[in-house]
Amino acid sequence: MIILTLNCGSSSVKYQVYDWANKDVLGSGVVERVGQSQSDLEYKSKGKDELVAKRPCPTHKEAIAWVMESILDPTYGCITDINQVTAVGHRIVHGGSVFTQSVEITDEVLAQFKKVEPLAPLHNPANIMGVEAARALLPKVTHCAILDTAWHQTMPDTAFMYALPHAWYDKHQVRRYGFHGSSFLYTSKRAALLLGKPANQTNLVICHIGNGASACAVKNGVSVDTSMGMTPLEGLVMGSRSGDIDPAIMPYMAREAGMSIDQLDAALSKESGLLGITGRFTDRRDVEDGVAKGEADCILAQNMEIYRIKKYIGAYAAVVGPELDAIVFTAGVGEFGADIRAGALIGMEHLGIKVDLAKNKLAMTRNAETCISADDSKVKVFVIPTDEEIVMTEDTVAISNGTYKPHTEYRYIFEEASYVNKAREAGLPKDLTKRPGLDKIIAQPKK
Amino acid sequence: MIILTLNCGSSSVKYQVYDWANKDVLGSGVVERVGQSQSDLEYKSKGKDELVAKRPCPTHKEAIAWVMESILDPTYGCITDINQVTAVGHRIVHGGSVFTQSVEITDEVLAQFKKVEPLAPLHNPANIMGVEAARALLPKVTHCAILDTAWHQTMPDTAFMYALPHAWYDKHQVRRYGFHGSSFLYTSKRAALLLGKPANQTNLVICHIGNGASACAVKNGVSVDTSMGMTPLEGLVMGSRSGDIDPAIMPYMAREAGMSIDQLDAALSKESGLLGITGRFTDRRDVEDGVAKGEADCILAQNMEIYRIKKYIGAYAAVVGPELDAIVFTAGVGEFGADIRAGALIGMEHLGIKVDLAKNKLAMTRNAETCISADDSKVKVFVIPTDEEIVMTEDTVAISNGTYKPHTEYRYIFEEASYVNKAREAGLPKDLTKRPGLDKIIAQPKK
Repeated sequence: MIILTLNCGSSSVKYQVYDWANKDVLGSGVVERVGQSQSDLEYKSKGKDELVAKRPCPTHKEAIAWVMESILDPTYGCITDINQVTAVGHRIVHGGSVFTQSVEITDEVLAQFKKVEPLAPLHNPANIMGVEAARALLPKVTHCAILDTAWHQTMPDTAFMYALPHAWYDKHQVRRYGFHGSSFLYTSKRAALLLGKPANQTNLVICHIGNGASACAVKNGVSVDTSMGMTPLEGLVMGSRSGDIDPAIMPYMAREAGMSIDQLDAALSKESGLLGITGRFTDRRDVEDGVAKGEADCILAQNMEIYRIKKYIGAYAAVVGPELDAIVFTAGVGEFGADIRAGALIGMEHLGIKVDLAKNKLAMTRNAETCISADDSKVKVFVIPTDEEIVMTEDTVAISNGTYKPHTEYRYIFEEASYVNKAREAGLPKDLTKRPGLDKIIAQPKK
Repeated sequence: MIILTLNCGSSSVKYQVYDWANKDVLGSGVVERVGQSQSDLEYKSKGKDELVAKRPCPTHKEAIAWVMESILDPTYGCITDINQVTAVGHRIVHGGSVFTQSVEITDEVLAQFKKVEPLAPLHNPANIMGVEAARALLPKVTHCAILDTAWHQTMPDTAFMYALPHAWYDKHQVRRYGFHGSSFLYTSKRAALLLGKPANQTNLVICHIGNGASACAVKNGVSVDTSMGMTPLEGLVMGSRSGDIDPAIMPYMAREAGMSIDQLDAALSKESGLLGITGRFTDRRDVEDGVAKGEADCILAQNMEIYRIKKYIGAYAAVVGPELDAIVFTAGVGEFGADIRAGALIGMEHLGIKVDLAKNKLAMTRNAETCISADDSKVKVFVIPTDEEIVMTEDTVAISNGTYKPHTEYRYIFEEASYVNKAREAGLPKDLTKRPGLDKIIAQPKK
């Protein structure tokens, strides 16, 4: 079985081709700047040279066609016939409350995704366009949806409800949904393995810190709370998203600065976070550089990012309870941002969390899972490189084979002690070097 | 010296007359429903019968006149001549970033309060009307402002800045200010005394849970973070205020339900919180009743209130650091809501917090400060009845006498081990029995 996974962002498509029989990545790539005058594609098959190209992709439809072209390319590709693709897994950001697990995409399912588009106006339209383009090009294979929100459907109402007029929930689905589900699923199962515990007895706080960032409280192996909310805006400080604010700021700014609600919405999503604080940077590499130069705005931005993570670790440690086993850091900044991790973890001994700063400093690779807590730390701290694609791939395989079950009853290949991520050994996926902050942090270790 | 303190809410005036020489409350009362067709006054002088009366008070001006009348009443009053009042202390909710401590009210100071009115459109206009009415009636005495926000001006920028466009701060003063300052000041000093530590070495998480509710992280005796933000809307679940939400809910509801930004603003402040969840109750007594009857909406509302408090205790425990000395509960629900305290504190042993449920259950009085943590709890838990009026009174005395300094350099009378609150012994202040939940909780202890 050859599985193609597609992750359509608002202006990008990440993709991977996986050979299930050999449990190996055949190729992976990314198309960026979709919708702009020139789009960029970077793609690499295992054992072959890298393909780097430019071409206009006005929509995700052209981008998906280019994806297919790249994996079929006689020189750079990894398959020779499009019919070699057995099934396609699509990342869908928002599934509302309908989907509690991954699902085969039918016309009815697609209609449901469209129904919840207002909940994720930046993400779901791109996801849906990707699905439609891929179904047109591969009409005969199974297409599956792996939903960011599905993982969090185990949250109790105490955590997912807002203290808002009840009709907003009843009539308009206003509640916490949470995102980054595949990443939390993957890292929670890997953490259980590292702890030597069954996943359903594992209690964690997971910090997924990438361009988007969220934390998740995991109790007995399932999500019980998460920092992103109805949308991916709430919670941690992100590249250009505000995370938590006083909601009264919006009406205040409408009155004081004459901003419309759509302008406020856009400002909170696209002009806030690290970009808002510094006025110039969304990328942690740039912020790190600024910190090294002693620039006040960058120091404030980094401190605020660290501080928000620290507060969420404390809050979720309280939520998870005395059986808390480990704190997990993952995604670009979580895997490589040693300074950010250290800042968030220092001074948490009274919570049973004792970081080993030397180990933390060395944990900057996607090729290993590292324990960065001190030997006598009651709560372990792990850095676990995430792998959302393997979750998407295996869910797609299992749905295609009729063996799929909810994650609480299903055992993934990466839950086995013998599991080896061959892709990482081969230097794939290609696009990971583009994760924010990576190059600079590796090039210039600090302190 | 006789000090009158005035606390003008949006539709109420609380007041107290204090005899500084004898450190005793002479009388206290409250006018409620200001601005409605009938306003209610309840007032009691020490050793005299209670005065209960009705009268229309269209504005705070009439209410303040009635306050003066009540304290001068030949039968029920506590003074015989208005000129016995030496000085007046006014509670001012929002002082922006200008005021870091209490201040004598001059025309310039009053102009400054008016300048920050947009930051507190519900509270500051009432405060200012109260000041103007009292100055007109008592033009020759010193009037002082005790600001809710002043206590929190020690917060570092990491805590007070939002990850929003920087111009919103530079041009529009968008930042965290925090409220309930006098209550946090009072309870933090009392906690230091109970701990036997100097205030400036004391590390606390204080939960002020009344109709409005906020938490404060205190490090080395000063505020380093608080849950209320630019306005008193952010943070904990309150009677009719939402506290924390995903800010993207506002533009979503504008689009989906056609609500204006002013309607959204009002809904979050007046139709949310416990009222939003239950659709019917803002008062904890009613919610408690519903919980006892097994009503799902009340159980959810109480659980959500508890859960939010728990998360803030965890977050601020992380912020304060390993030297955390104590958790403090105060204000109506904090002092009497044993179930809410227990819910928030259970399962926090890994944070060094071990509640003694029997002690917690017994701590339902304004007449004693109680330690409700287990003997072997690393972090103490105190229930400390708040007394904002004594802070207002002493600041007013000190400003009048020229002895006033910031709280970090000043020693309040209630910081002395010998201090006795004579008012409480005499059953004053009168209005405290009206605090939410009090009667019912005392009448019907649960579990």
